[in-house]
Amino acid sequence: MSHSKKKIAIIGSGLVGSLLAIYLRKYGHDITVFDRRPDIRNVKFSGRSINLAMSNRGWKALHEVGIDQEIKKIAIPLNKRAMHVIGKPLYFQNYGKENEAIWSISRGVLNRRMIDLAEASGVIFKFEEKVWDVDLPSAELFTGETEKGEWKSYKYDLIFGCDGAFSRVRHKMQRRSRFDYSQDFIDVGYKELTILPNADGTHKLDKNSFHIWPRGNFMFIAMPNLDGSFTCTLFMPFEGEVSFENIKTKEDAKEFFTTYFPNVMHDIENLTQDFFNNPTSAMVTMKCYPWTYWDKVALVGDSAHAIVPFYGQGMNAGFEDIFVLNKLIQENKDNWGTIFKKYQESRKPNADAIAELSYRNFMEMSHKTADPMFLLQKKIEKHFAALHPEKWIPVYSRVTFSDKPYADALAYGDKQEAIMQQVMKIPNIETLWNSKIVEDKILELLS
Amino acid sequence: MSHSKKKIAIIGSGLVGSLLAIYLRKYGHDITVFDRRPDIRNVKFSGRSINLAMSNRGWKALHEVGIDQEIKKIAIPLNKRAMHVIGKPLYFQNYGKENEAIWSISRGVLNRRMIDLAEASGVIFKFEEKVWDVDLPSAELFTGETEKGEWKSYKYDLIFGCDGAFSRVRHKMQRRSRFDYSQDFIDVGYKELTILPNADGTHKLDKNSFHIWPRGNFMFIAMPNLDGSFTCTLFMPFEGEVSFENIKTKEDAKEFFTTYFPNVMHDIENLTQDFFNNPTSAMVTMKCYPWTYWDKVALVGDSAHAIVPFYGQGMNAGFEDIFVLNKLIQENKDNWGTIFKKYQESRKPNADAIAELSYRNFMEMSHKTADPMFLLQKKIEKHFAALHPEKWIPVYSRVTFSDKPYADALAYGDKQEAIMQQVMKIPNIETLWNSKIVEDKILELLS
Repeated sequence: MSHSKKKIAIIGSGLVGSLLAIYLRKYGHDITVFDRRPDIRNVKFSGRSINLAMSNRGWKALHEVGIDQEIKKIAIPLNKRAMHVIGKPLYFQNYGKENEAIWSISRGVLNRRMIDLAEASGVIFKFEEKVWDVDLPSAELFTGETEKGEWKSYKYDLIFGCDGAFSRVRHKMQRRSRFDYSQDFIDVGYKELTILPNADGTHKLDKNSFHIWPRGNFMFIAMPNLDGSFTCTLFMPFEGEVSFENIKTKEDAKEFFTTYFPNVMHDIENLTQDFFNNPTSAMVTMKCYPWTYWDKVALVGDSAHAIVPFYGQGMNAGFEDIFVLNKLIQENKDNWGTIFKKYQESRKPNADAIAELSYRNFMEMSHKTADPMFLLQKKIEKHFAALHPEKWIPVYSRVTFSDKPYADALAYGDKQEAIMQQVMKIPNIETLWNSKIVEDKILELLS
Repeated sequence: MSHSKKKIAIIGSGLVGSLLAIYLRKYGHDITVFDRRPDIRNVKFSGRSINLAMSNRGWKALHEVGIDQEIKKIAIPLNKRAMHVIGKPLYFQNYGKENEAIWSISRGVLNRRMIDLAEASGVIFKFEEKVWDVDLPSAELFTGETEKGEWKSYKYDLIFGCDGAFSRVRHKMQRRSRFDYSQDFIDVGYKELTILPNADGTHKLDKNSFHIWPRGNFMFIAMPNLDGSFTCTLFMPFEGEVSFENIKTKEDAKEFFTTYFPNVMHDIENLTQDFFNNPTSAMVTMKCYPWTYWDKVALVGDSAHAIVPFYGQGMNAGFEDIFVLNKLIQENKDNWGTIFKKYQESRKPNADAIAELSYRNFMEMSHKTADPMFLLQKKIEKHFAALHPEKWIPVYSRVTFSDKPYADALAYGDKQEAIMQQVMKIPNIETLWNSKIVEDKILELLS
């Protein structure tokens, strides 16, 4: 049993689409990638990106096809958070053990590099060709200038929908009976902003940190680029007291930055300009099932499971889809029906888990950071983890620095949370928090 | 401030669309109802109906426009359940107090009558005219033979999407940012079957009962029609040991009915024929938000909130939407922006509540009826309610025989459930279930 040569279409030339193309091309398949947008290598990137944090799962998927070292050249390791808290001096939190880091990469720079690599391996890219419809049973796709205009049709053996949260391929699957689907938007939007490099090309803030300005229900973050700039993201409610809706003029914007983010004042002109030039984008959790149609069509990445970005795992989860899919191809050769069935069954619970973890991180950041009991709980967990590192691995580490299933990390986190609920009921926990009593109670509950 | 005359389009000539037309016509508006299907008055009904159970909320909405007595002529009151349990003689359960009944109506018969009534009041119906697209800000709609073909356009002041669970109008709203949406199918399907009348036109089973054959994870129900027949529904898993998938031949079907439904054997030929002639349909819970667009477009009924049929409230909930909408029109006159805002804000929590209650009824029926502790709990509740009818109103009665908000019924049910969770923990509850101890415990927990 071997891998017979297939004619494969991939819809979407984003990160997941281009990595999947590189993987599938290794088997000698004919690969065509369609994208409705122009070639990202020829255009300025759109200004609606959140910089990416590549972590363990992403690197593992790149390593498998031998391109991790190539990509590390365009990534900057961040081994700590830099916390810009009002009324406190800047302080740092290491992410984990020595050598544990997440890597900052510009989405545009990475995407361009991945398309280059895919093209060099023989993948054909068709940019500015809009897919409007897919006939699922025959794996035929239809493209054209407009939805109502003339269409061209292409017949393939397999079609992969890597066309993101608003996937056309999924849209077609969604209109079938017994297709479960949900899209849930959060009330917080985001906007990309830039902190420019110093005149000498160096970074204005520490380069090896993930910079966070937490402000309750809004937040500003900054991640470094190779050129000395930082790609920043302002997360803020769409409506309400401090909100996108309420910043209407340049004066409003300047006052907003001055009040809440005084140490980025040096870039106030640029930030204000970005604020009105760049769009305010919405964030959605999208779930669906099934992810595949017979042995013909499969969704990979955001098209199957779009998540809010608060765990930095969107791309990593998509790359892990590809890693798992590839293992199943190796094991099941030409049995695409089996491959697709096992793929969706193994990935769905993990996609749901990282969606839940990401949503919880959003809720924690936006709703709980002002709650003193929540902060105390986090302090107790940290204290205990320092005393017993082998007994209390933070969920963040399980998600970010391991390749164990997301679903296990979620279950483990729920177990920790149940224990902490008990611990927080100890009388006078506020004063006893770092005592032997609390330590022993956690040990007892763990065993 | 008065009601200025509007040009209004209603998409969908089903029960909700035709009742809404009757309501709006009373204000003198120009009303056109579009439906992609042929006029139901000229065609045999499709064989995918579950007979309707009109209850309090439905009658109230009909009464408001003076058509309840007219509709009662085509309805049969059911004051009890007739339980066909294997190994037990047939027994009856009254629905509630004296005069409390649900009313069986054939969907086709009702829909034809409603369209007649709407037409008589001056509503224009355009059948077999397919709406493919709606421009939300301008309330313009586009119709044509095919999606890709030539389209005609119509401009209105207001558009109402009453086009059901797979609404085209909602489909357009769904592609906007920040529109929350979910569709969740259950693993159980249904099929319509018929029990024919006796030769003399009388009913083969008691006419004033809702007949139920509960069989664990599948079930058969029958509701009477005026012509002496019963419209029956078989609910059964799509896949698994006893499932639609596993009944492949006429012999399979005959064996299935003989084994599980011996007292419908007299109709075995007809049931078997129906089984293979009629489609197996899926059931979905569909939620979305917002339901309206500015002062231009609103979703009403299943298009806004499709629910599984296990509480018999789908049509009733849709009619209640219209009743509430009408009250808001009376209060707010021409302020359609305000009307739509208040309409969705007041109805959304109630739609979510009846969706939850309906889904729970499905879970109870399909998963819990074999659990002796669950059955004991229901027996205790019934026993207590008989002793203290004013202290323990069954949720079913609150939903079916009152017009208090669904959301209140759900909250009340949750409170009852929490009490029963405590009660079921009483040691030896199996023997004590009808004792003073249990009665006093419930009284204590209630106060």
